[in-house]
Amino acid sequence: VGKPKFTSERLYSGETPPGVVMGLAWTSMGGASLFVETILRRPLELDSKSEGSIEITGHLGDVMKESCRISYTVSKNLLMKYQKDNHFLDKAHMHIHVPEGATPKDGPSAGVTIVSALLSLALNHAIPNNVAMTGEVSLTGKVMPVGGIKEKTIAAKRAGVKTLILPEQNRKDFSDLPDFIRQDIDVHFVDHYTQLFSIIFPELDSRPASTASQAS
Amino acid sequence: VGKPKFTSERLYSGETPPGVVMGLAWTSMGGASLFVETILRRPLELDSKSEGSIEITGHLGDVMKESCRISYTVSKNLLMKYQKDNHFLDKAHMHIHVPEGATPKDGPSAGVTIVSALLSLALNHAIPNNVAMTGEVSLTGKVMPVGGIKEKTIAAKRAGVKTLILPEQNRKDFSDLPDFIRQDIDVHFVDHYTQLFSIIFPELDSRPASTASQAS
Amino acid sequence: VGKPKFTSERLYSGETPPGVVMGLAWTSMGGASLFVETILRRPLELDSKSEGSIEITGHLGDVMKESCRISYTVSKNLLMKYQKDNHFLDKAHMHIHVPEGATPKDGPSAGVTIVSALLSLALNHAIPNNVAMTGEVSLTGKVMPVGGIKEKTIAAKRAGVKTLILPEQNRKDFSDLPDFIRQDIDVHFVDHYTQLFSIIFPELDSRPASTASQAS
Repeated sequence: VGKPKFTSERLYSGETPPGVVMGLAWTSMGGASLFVETILRRPLELDSKSEGSIEITGHLGDVMKESCRISYTVSKNLLMKYQKDNHFLDKAHMHIHVPEGATPKDGPSAGVTIVSALLSLALNHAIPNNVAMTGEVSLTGKVMPVGGIKEKTIAAKRAGVKTLILPEQNRKDFSDLPDFIRQDIDVHFVDHYTQLFSIIFPELDSRPASTASQAS
Repeated sequence: VGKPKFTSERLYSGETPPGVVMGLAWTSMGGASLFVETILRRPLELDSKSEGSIEITGHLGDVMKESCRISYTVSKNLLMKYQKDNHFLDKAHMHIHVPEGATPKDGPSAGVTIVSALLSLALNHAIPNNVAMTGEVSLTGKVMPVGGIKEKTIAAKRAGVKTLILPEQNRKDFSDLPDFIRQDIDVHFVDHYTQLFSIIFPELDSRPASTASQAS
Repeated sequence: VGKPKFTSERLYSGETPPGVVMGLAWTSMGGASLFVETILRRPLELDSKSEGSIEITGHLGDVMKESCRISYTVSKNLLMKYQKDNHFLDKAHMHIHVPEGATPKDGPSAGVTIVSALLSLALNHAIPNNVAMTGEVSLTGKVMPVGGIKEKTIAAKRAGVKTLILPEQNRKDFSDLPDFIRQDIDVHFVDHYTQLFSIIFPELDSRPASTASQAS
């Protein structure tokens, strides 16, 4: 198989700080886990009159750069629903990076991972590093199917993932996998980000039901 | 026929929120339904001194990006006619996205769909997800003919569309279609956006007649 | 072997001022030492309302330019942890240059060197010119492995380096080298920049333990 493309798979072998979430990539050489990292790039000024911004690095292609901008809008709207008074994402000047810097990456399938990283940073709430996710996100938070479910599942298990979150429309792709791949991993299927939110931030998911249905 | 290019056809199988409208695309592989999504990307400040803006994503070509800007101007002018005191579109910082993020899209034929999505967001009024439309829009609101009427009609029916809105100048293209394609769908032909407005927002269409003729 | 690619190896044979740090490159012609230079490009105004910036030169490729931006964010976050009241990096307009200007350079492996140069400038603290380092840095300060350990080690020794800092994940690459290369050089392996900080700024490393663990 040769040298693995992403040696960053072991990057957060200890713990992931708030703002860092594991995603899954699908390359010509198979699946790979990767980390989306987000961090403040200036001290936060919540009473600033100017709006926040994101800087993007990681040798990303145009589709993945757009995916960062879509995820930025999605995470701001979700935070408005979950924590009306939390203006972190509106005001923060943040940096989104996807190591390794020399490996070109593209595609929309890290959408849910980028949304999760931004929300994790805004909520100052770490996500366990044995949780991984993949899925394109639409502007209203819908989770759309992606390719490479088999390769990504294998990569997730290799990285020690115990909880895997996949798009609902990829349910069949997953159930078609051989038993030995599907076993020993807890898989969730979601078709809207609000469902994913409940899985990774269970203690924060206290919205009134009316808001929940509005978001779908 | 192979894998459908737009798997996002089933994206809003439930309901579409305000700001989301179904359009129709014509690709080398046939017709396809797609959704234009619009949403606020910052909390709305109606008393702000600075004007609003749009951010555009979805792997759009230059013509379609310009179509977004044309539709932005058209929708602002229409809103001024219909709801003089509604300054949403003048002040809002919005995001327009057309899933899926990895599928390149171009052309002016989503013009009426983008105008409708922006108005739906500004009026906070959802459009049923069994309504689809296609048509280029001119800066004054004229609706201009587009290609692929046959393929788009087939795609609309496949997506469960009951009401199809087409440019008046495409009437002949539609009437030339075989009966089995034309049946079971309610089709409207429009040559100005004001006619389209009456169809999708019937309860909001209370302009004085003089304004109506002015707009045509 | 031909003309050495980097004649700037002897550039700082005397002393390096604050803001200048020796890195190691790996070219088709073998390893080479190089210097990352940083300096103010405008008088510092700490009470300015506008944020600082970096200008980048040195015939750098896109990955290395991104590496400068990543290192900029990393160094700002580290300075916030080590010297809460030091706003140098938030406000300074700096210039990052990597001589020689005509030699193309690329890759992410100067990450730790650029972070060190920016911190050295911000802390006004010179780093001895017999210290060299190589390693990619992630947005949260993780140090990631790089290629060319053998060639870089030889180049470091040729440049008179006594202290060499390498990524932890390159430990095996180094220990596989023949004895005569490994001798007469003091090598440190780090997997987070905070460890590197302790080595090059030992007298400044007075953070409370709780902050240290937070950063890992």
